[in-house]
Amino acid sequence: MVKNKKVNAGILIIGNEILSGRTQDTNTSTIASWLNSIGVKVHEVRVIPDIEKKIIDTVNEFRKLNDYVFTTGGIGPTHDDITAASISKAFNLEYQVHKKAFNILQSYYKPGEFNDGRQKMVWMPKDANLILNPTSGAPGFSVENVFCLPGVPSILKSMLGGLTNRIIGGEPILSHTISLRTVESEIASSLSNVQDNNQDVEIGSYPFFQAGKLGVSIVIRSEDQSRIDKCNNQILDFVGEKKIKVVDR
Amino acid sequence: MVKNKKVNAGILIIGNEILSGRTQDTNTSTIASWLNSIGVKVHEVRVIPDIEKKIIDTVNEFRKLNDYVFTTGGIGPTHDDITAASISKAFNLEYQVHKKAFNILQSYYKPGEFNDGRQKMVWMPKDANLILNPTSGAPGFSVENVFCLPGVPSILKSMLGGLTNRIIGGEPILSHTISLRTVESEIASSLSNVQDNNQDVEIGSYPFFQAGKLGVSIVIRSEDQSRIDKCNNQILDFVGEKKIKVVDR
Repeated sequence: MVKNKKVNAGILIIGNEILSGRTQDTNTSTIASWLNSIGVKVHEVRVIPDIEKKIIDTVNEFRKLNDYVFTTGGIGPTHDDITAASISKAFNLEYQVHKKAFNILQSYYKPGEFNDGRQKMVWMPKDANLILNPTSGAPGFSVENVFCLPGVPSILKSMLGGLTNRIIGGEPILSHTISLRTVESEIASSLSNVQDNNQDVEIGSYPFFQAGKLGVSIVIRSEDQSRIDKCNNQILDFVGEKKIKVVDR
Repeated sequence: MVKNKKVNAGILIIGNEILSGRTQDTNTSTIASWLNSIGVKVHEVRVIPDIEKKIIDTVNEFRKLNDYVFTTGGIGPTHDDITAASISKAFNLEYQVHKKAFNILQSYYKPGEFNDGRQKMVWMPKDANLILNPTSGAPGFSVENVFCLPGVPSILKSMLGGLTNRIIGGEPILSHTISLRTVESEIASSLSNVQDNNQDVEIGSYPFFQAGKLGVSIVIRSEDQSRIDKCNNQILDFVGEKKIKVVDR
């Protein structure tokens, strides 16, 4: 199978708790790393509040701009969980009880425990596809190219594995990191030359502090290992000439 | 002084390393928490790649939508640091050597160390206002309502203090958290009633796991402490009726 199409995604983090600074988002890096491994590149991430119009507008913008859209947050049982209702409106679909999700949760909970609050979690856009939840029962869902996941990081993580075969990626995006005991200004000009000579490769430079010493990590990213190798050699050439130490990180 | 205007901000995280999942963004919560404390509410965060057109378009959209815009990343010495050049284009300003920044870095570095790479960091939009950097010398800058900060979290943090008196906020946004030994579905309906009765207050519900036990944190946010107190009492009322335990977190 030849996979050479570039496939991109947008991530939509829905939740006032991220915007207020109370909660540190970790779902972006979880989803982005997983997508990279299956050949999907994240083009943009937006964090937006629990406001219906904002969710509808952003989903409708994102689903046209991206091959795939992933939302996190807002699919629990409380009043501030408005993602499923908003997605229904974005797609102009009925917001209704999803029978299969209802059956899943009815058997998940003990008799009498499947109360009104929990029943809210089976309200979804009509004919949504379920995303199974091996951690806490309540499924996520997808409509067309929009995949809606919960905000709790451990639950979200457990659901990605089951999604992998529903995403058609391109070539996996490979990366190679070279960490150097130097500062960015020492290598800026040489590194810029390497980037100019290899414009189809993404080269990033990131300063770090480790054990009280300064360093720079150079990250080379491409779908093509031979291009990464070529850049790697060109970088190691100037690193050698400048007598800069390569370090492990 | 009466401060009752709502003041909002947008945050723009610029950097491929966040989108690839390699680096976990922490600057959003740092900036958002600081802004809350001075009465500015973050309306939206976007993470975008190191692509000039994308930076220009997003800055121009954000600076109209928000009272303040904060960007992080892309102001270092390497080829992938294109924020200052992009901001210049967004504002249609010359991208040129900033004399005051040049003088700061010239005295910051030892003679001979202020090389070409480092000199790139003093190229800024014409007449930009500097944001001093007590950690590593190279200043950030602002143009109108757009404030450009570095991506390295420790450096960014050290620069916020000096910015506080340049941001005119509204009333600080106060918050109160009640943590309960329960699950969301048990309180969803009662909590929804409290929200309906207090529509000017933002009430969020966030499940947590602590020492192997499930819990829910309810976060009440408002500029008005008396409104928070009113919600708090209404929540504690139903919590007491349901015999739910309040816990410390």
